Amino acid sequence: MEAGVPQLKFNRMFFKLLSKGVFSLAIYSYRSTAYWNETDAAGIVHFSNYFRYCERAEEEFFKKLLGGFPDILSRYSVIVPRVRAACDYYRPIFPHDDFRVDIVDLELGNKSIKYRFEIFNESRGFKAADCEVVIAIVDPSVMKSIEIPGPLRELLKSVGARERNPER
Amino acid sequence: MEAGVPQLKFNRMFFKLLSKGVFSLAIYSYRSTAYWNETDAAGIVHFSNYFRYCERAEEEFFKKLLGGFPDILSRYSVIVPRVRAACDYYRPIFPHDDFRVDIVDLELGNKSIKYRFEIFNESRGFKAADCEVVIAIVDPSVMKSIEIPGPLRELLKSVGARERNPER
Amino acid sequence: MEAGVPQLKFNRMFFKLLSKGVFSLAIYSYRSTAYWNETDAAGIVHFSNYFRYCERAEEEFFKKLLGGFPDILSRYSVIVPRVRAACDYYRPIFPHDDFRVDIVDLELGNKSIKYRFEIFNESRGFKAADCEVVIAIVDPSVMKSIEIPGPLRELLKSVGARERNPER
Amino acid sequence: MEAGVPQLKFNRMFFKLLSKGVFSLAIYSYRSTAYWNETDAAGIVHFSNYFRYCERAEEEFFKKLLGGFPDILSRYSVIVPRVRAACDYYRPIFPHDDFRVDIVDLELGNKSIKYRFEIFNESRGFKAADCEVVIAIVDPSVMKSIEIPGPLRELLKSVGARERNPER
Repeated sequence: MEAGVPQLKFNRMFFKLLSKGVFSLAIYSYRSTAYWNETDAAGIVHFSNYFRYCERAEEEFFKKLLGGFPDILSRYSVIVPRVRAACDYYRPIFPHDDFRVDIVDLELGNKSIKYRFEIFNESRGFKAADCEVVIAIVDPSVMKSIEIPGPLRELLKSVGARERNPER
Repeated sequence: MEAGVPQLKFNRMFFKLLSKGVFSLAIYSYRSTAYWNETDAAGIVHFSNYFRYCERAEEEFFKKLLGGFPDILSRYSVIVPRVRAACDYYRPIFPHDDFRVDIVDLELGNKSIKYRFEIFNESRGFKAADCEVVIAIVDPSVMKSIEIPGPLRELLKSVGARERNPER
Repeated sequence: MEAGVPQLKFNRMFFKLLSKGVFSLAIYSYRSTAYWNETDAAGIVHFSNYFRYCERAEEEFFKKLLGGFPDILSRYSVIVPRVRAACDYYRPIFPHDDFRVDIVDLELGNKSIKYRFEIFNESRGFKAADCEVVIAIVDPSVMKSIEIPGPLRELLKSVGARERNPER
Repeated sequence: MEAGVPQLKFNRMFFKLLSKGVFSLAIYSYRSTAYWNETDAAGIVHFSNYFRYCERAEEEFFKKLLGGFPDILSRYSVIVPRVRAACDYYRPIFPHDDFRVDIVDLELGNKSIKYRFEIFNESRGFKAADCEVVIAIVDPSVMKSIEIPGPLRELLKSVGARERNPER
């Protein structure tokens, strides 16, 4: 019984460190620095730039996944317009702070993909924001959304994506 | 009885025009043009810029409301950091398209304000996006959120804001 | 003789007001407001945004000139990449300051156009910057610079552009 | 005499490779990737972003030089507003191209520093632009330009900066 106590303590520490972003179980992590031009007159990174940080993480993720240029279009003949983007902001990122964007979840719908991102201020040791972006899979020749191409679906699942519909 | 039919038709047309953004019942409307630097390589306005368009609408709204510079800080001793921002994207805005951002709802919480925005592509006659932004009312001397100052609350209600808690 | 003195005084006042941007002899003037997202952590408009302000002035100028959308490509089958851009910064633009970008000179080369811009901080009554942008006239089908199309050259001259080579 | 020929060939190749950016003799090199949000509807990096790339190179240079955060203000009690910025554009940077910004010259005036940057498109093997930025050394307490602090001058010279006035 008492053996549980250290385990509990360990778990608490584990989740505390996880929530502070000291380490991560992310599908992909992108790291960069908050540059001067990304800040605003409040002295912090402008809230709209969090969406750009998430997109950069997505770009680097696809670059790594597809090798070389992240040309999802040339490989799968699809484009991926955003249909939804949302961020909850907790704490700021200051000029020159190092930050990390974790892709923590990739949910595969039929014709769309939902990303969940967590943004950590690594210089100051706290989570800055939770974000969510939904992209549609669109055939550019007819500009209609289509099913995620099978090979892309399998590729994404091989690196940690999950089906929204578990029966699939 | 038959008198209702034209009324119904009128209503349908009314809501159709309203949904196309031909006219609006907005609390405030901000109009501008999509500039070249706001587009991306897909040939459309980058999704992150919709948040900047909403913020500009908010800035112009406060400028009009407070007279001259929108200095909410000097007048009410508060700052208004964003705690949430979200957009649902329907259709694109192309370079040089004229667009309109309507503030369609202003919901007053105790210590926060929720904006709802509708963005219309006026050049092409369709709605481009629905957005939502929540700002906290923060005392910058202690960096804690505080109640919306009474005079600001009344001022906002006088131009169409509503209480989240109707009993208030 | 003494008659010259008031004239001199008038001239001085004239050039003083001109230099402060109170009025202008510009080919085209674009007015806007410095939005929050255009500022940086120094509390002023980021220097890179002056180039965006100049480009917006150019876009509005062409919009007015060509009627409707500034589609220089569809009308003259040319694209206009930038080959040079430069700004000298004198004084800052603060959040919500109203500013004005004057196109004060349009110099027509053989295959390029040089703009000179003056940016005024209208809220504070001073000149903020002098800028210069050179665009090439490029045939997009072969991606080579070509002579300014005759009709475009004449159109630009009709609104105040001048030939670099006066013999032309 | 003939011994000069291979040397000449070597020199030619040396300068050719140098001009292509294959290697550099730069004071500092900053590398990154052109992200989607930095491009425009022409499908290339927007010209204003070259200035942001140069500034990022400067930020990383100071970060490396001063250790940790590039806080030139806290260390030398100066701020460094831009007084001039200019780019000559040669060839484009496309989405996801890797690029490099070299600081190739740092010229120390009395109260200002002039940077020369070269931007290379590393993915495609050509020079994209030459840029120049002049910063003033300003005492923020009186907002006047002052001499470059001696220790900063020496530090910059130790990494390759040169005096504009060689007699100094």
